[in-house]
Amino acid sequence: MKKMILIVAAMLLCSVIYAQQALWGNQPIVSPEINQDGTVTFRYKGPEATKVQVTGDFLPTTKVDTHFGKLDAPAPADMVKGDKGIWEYTTEKAVAPEMYTYTFLVDGSSVIDMNNVFVNRDVSSLTSVLLVGGGRSDLYKVQEVPHGTVSRQWYHSDMAGFNRRMTVYTPAGYEDNAAKNYPVLYLLHGVGGDEEAWITQGRASQILDNLIAQGKAEPMIVVMTNGNLAEEAAPLENATGYNIPSMSLPKTMDGAFETAFHEIIDYIDSHYRTISKKESRAICGLSMGGFHSLYISLNNPDWFNYIGLFSAAIDTDPKQQGQSPIYQDFDSKLATLFSKKPALYWIGIGSTDFLYKPNEEYRVKLDAAGYPYKYLETDGGHIWRNWRIYLSEFTPLLFK
Amino acid sequence: MKKMILIVAAMLLCSVIYAQQALWGNQPIVSPEINQDGTVTFRYKGPEATKVQVTGDFLPTTKVDTHFGKLDAPAPADMVKGDKGIWEYTTEKAVAPEMYTYTFLVDGSSVIDMNNVFVNRDVSSLTSVLLVGGGRSDLYKVQEVPHGTVSRQWYHSDMAGFNRRMTVYTPAGYEDNAAKNYPVLYLLHGVGGDEEAWITQGRASQILDNLIAQGKAEPMIVVMTNGNLAEEAAPLENATGYNIPSMSLPKTMDGAFETAFHEIIDYIDSHYRTISKKESRAICGLSMGGFHSLYISLNNPDWFNYIGLFSAAIDTDPKQQGQSPIYQDFDSKLATLFSKKPALYWIGIGSTDFLYKPNEEYRVKLDAAGYPYKYLETDGGHIWRNWRIYLSEFTPLLFK
Repeated sequence: MKKMILIVAAMLLCSVIYAQQALWGNQPIVSPEINQDGTVTFRYKGPEATKVQVTGDFLPTTKVDTHFGKLDAPAPADMVKGDKGIWEYTTEKAVAPEMYTYTFLVDGSSVIDMNNVFVNRDVSSLTSVLLVGGGRSDLYKVQEVPHGTVSRQWYHSDMAGFNRRMTVYTPAGYEDNAAKNYPVLYLLHGVGGDEEAWITQGRASQILDNLIAQGKAEPMIVVMTNGNLAEEAAPLENATGYNIPSMSLPKTMDGAFETAFHEIIDYIDSHYRTISKKESRAICGLSMGGFHSLYISLNNPDWFNYIGLFSAAIDTDPKQQGQSPIYQDFDSKLATLFSKKPALYWIGIGSTDFLYKPNEEYRVKLDAAGYPYKYLETDGGHIWRNWRIYLSEFTPLLFK
Repeated sequence: MKKMILIVAAMLLCSVIYAQQALWGNQPIVSPEINQDGTVTFRYKGPEATKVQVTGDFLPTTKVDTHFGKLDAPAPADMVKGDKGIWEYTTEKAVAPEMYTYTFLVDGSSVIDMNNVFVNRDVSSLTSVLLVGGGRSDLYKVQEVPHGTVSRQWYHSDMAGFNRRMTVYTPAGYEDNAAKNYPVLYLLHGVGGDEEAWITQGRASQILDNLIAQGKAEPMIVVMTNGNLAEEAAPLENATGYNIPSMSLPKTMDGAFETAFHEIIDYIDSHYRTISKKESRAICGLSMGGFHSLYISLNNPDWFNYIGLFSAAIDTDPKQQGQSPIYQDFDSKLATLFSKKPALYWIGIGSTDFLYKPNEEYRVKLDAAGYPYKYLETDGGHIWRNWRIYLSEFTPLLFK
């Protein structure tokens, strides 16, 4: 048999792939680069481009006119063309610890950073991710700590009439402690999101891994549902193929998801080692998921001992809500809920969130009735930065 | 309390997100669009671009000179600028069913399709994905069938000295049949890949879901390992942060992974409901993973009843291999392996694969010794299209 040298085979293997990469136009450029002094450098190869900018939430914001009024938006930063057609921008100051998203604007067209494999999808938008560690942001990084298991798990929904997908986090040690049962947090996404949102943008598994490893949060199961009952699963994980993710699905915010929620609890309680009682069950969610958390807990006052509303899409006007009975008799249901003394009713919102006012009105209502709650107000608006903070603050308060 | 209309809140919620999208430069353009006649249209918004092309493996190939000789590469297709700066290309003919990857070349710079949320990472390259259903490709689509669970699962490797991540597929019904034990397929990736490769590019969970639903494959657990023992996990899922994925890691193809493989089997057998015996255990892999499958089975002839080498990086010259004893005494180990009559020894390779020759030499060797094996030769080279085919052909032969 003719001999072939293994190392050459391995090299050739690599080389062909490299060659394919080269043929396919990939450039071996480092971007983003977090420099020693904490500044960050972005690079884009565009020898024939005439204008390249970088935009992202690490940049200072400016007021931009939209038909919704003036909104804060990052002001794009100009990149400078250097050797070999590589455009470069380095931040003026060290970038504070946080998880950011950014894109390049190349002659007016938005593109992600092809040299950064960390790509984020928010509804139908793609962005590149910049994660600067340090401070609170260290919770969002994968650290050398024991890791929980993240599963994409399907269940049958009788009310939807088809199989639906959820993401389930079981804490480190779950597999090795077969006699141990765990409390459960149900963690809900916003409108347009899906069962991937909290695990990608929300960094839920990193936050839980790190808080549990530090002894700050109890080991818990975290169930990240898909909050649109018309939907099987996240885009491309369902049979519909290339449909662009939508924020106006049927069966969204009309009581359908809330009414069917017991199916999810039943599935989790019958398939995971849960502590199936109110004392060991929590629910929270962002925006639409805050609205869901509010109504599911309100209609089922014996289900959850811990309730968290993150930038919740609150509305308590029965006349304006849909016909679903789940939205009726708000005040009497609220009285019942608080008569059962939930261990924690938690509200978090950003000071410039467009939902600040209804949340403020809701707190006035709770105050007037003497219903106890904890409140956290942060800077900024209706953004993932705040929701990661709220998850990091809420989970250490659970199941103590 | 001042009233707020729910529907307005919901709309506002959407609108702000849309506004952010608009501010951030996202364009509501449909791309790729699979047309009624089976042609596919790609679109890119670039009002100021002077030349835009699309390149991908759905296009005819041409011979391109590289320092490895002439290689097949897709010839980029020119896109035509139309209204509102939107460039467009429609294939001349219907595109055959397959899962393809593509990128745009905008004035010479490679970018993905920002309107397609289906993004693929291969080592460090990002591409957009085009999945055309029909024929075999229907196996690669999510269909309305019962779905298995896909878990990212960590285990401790004593030999590596840290926790490592694997992807585990348990078939539909696993959770509901607590008394049932399952056979296991160990499915290994190529050099530069990781525990995500088979689940993303390989479409392993879709292929298994569909074959099992059709009754063509037995329900089985599939374990997708990380084949680089120096690595904890896929890029961005480990503590090293932004390091660009590399194909020249230490402890790769030097015997380390093969020697430590029993840790993975031990973990799976002790944490999943497996049938822990040779008759119910299979191993296969692509390229480096084929090399791993060859040596792990060769050194442990009682472990696997089914062995699959997909475009395997075969080399049987002991003088050229590393010092690891796992690579020594090839012929006598091979004789022992076949004396124990594995139910299936399966070899698949593409006719233009650069590893075709050593695979041919290996078959000559098996033939000369009278060792039985099954062989599948397909068109094309060292590419994922072939590895999806091999997985689709190999798995129905297992555990019968």
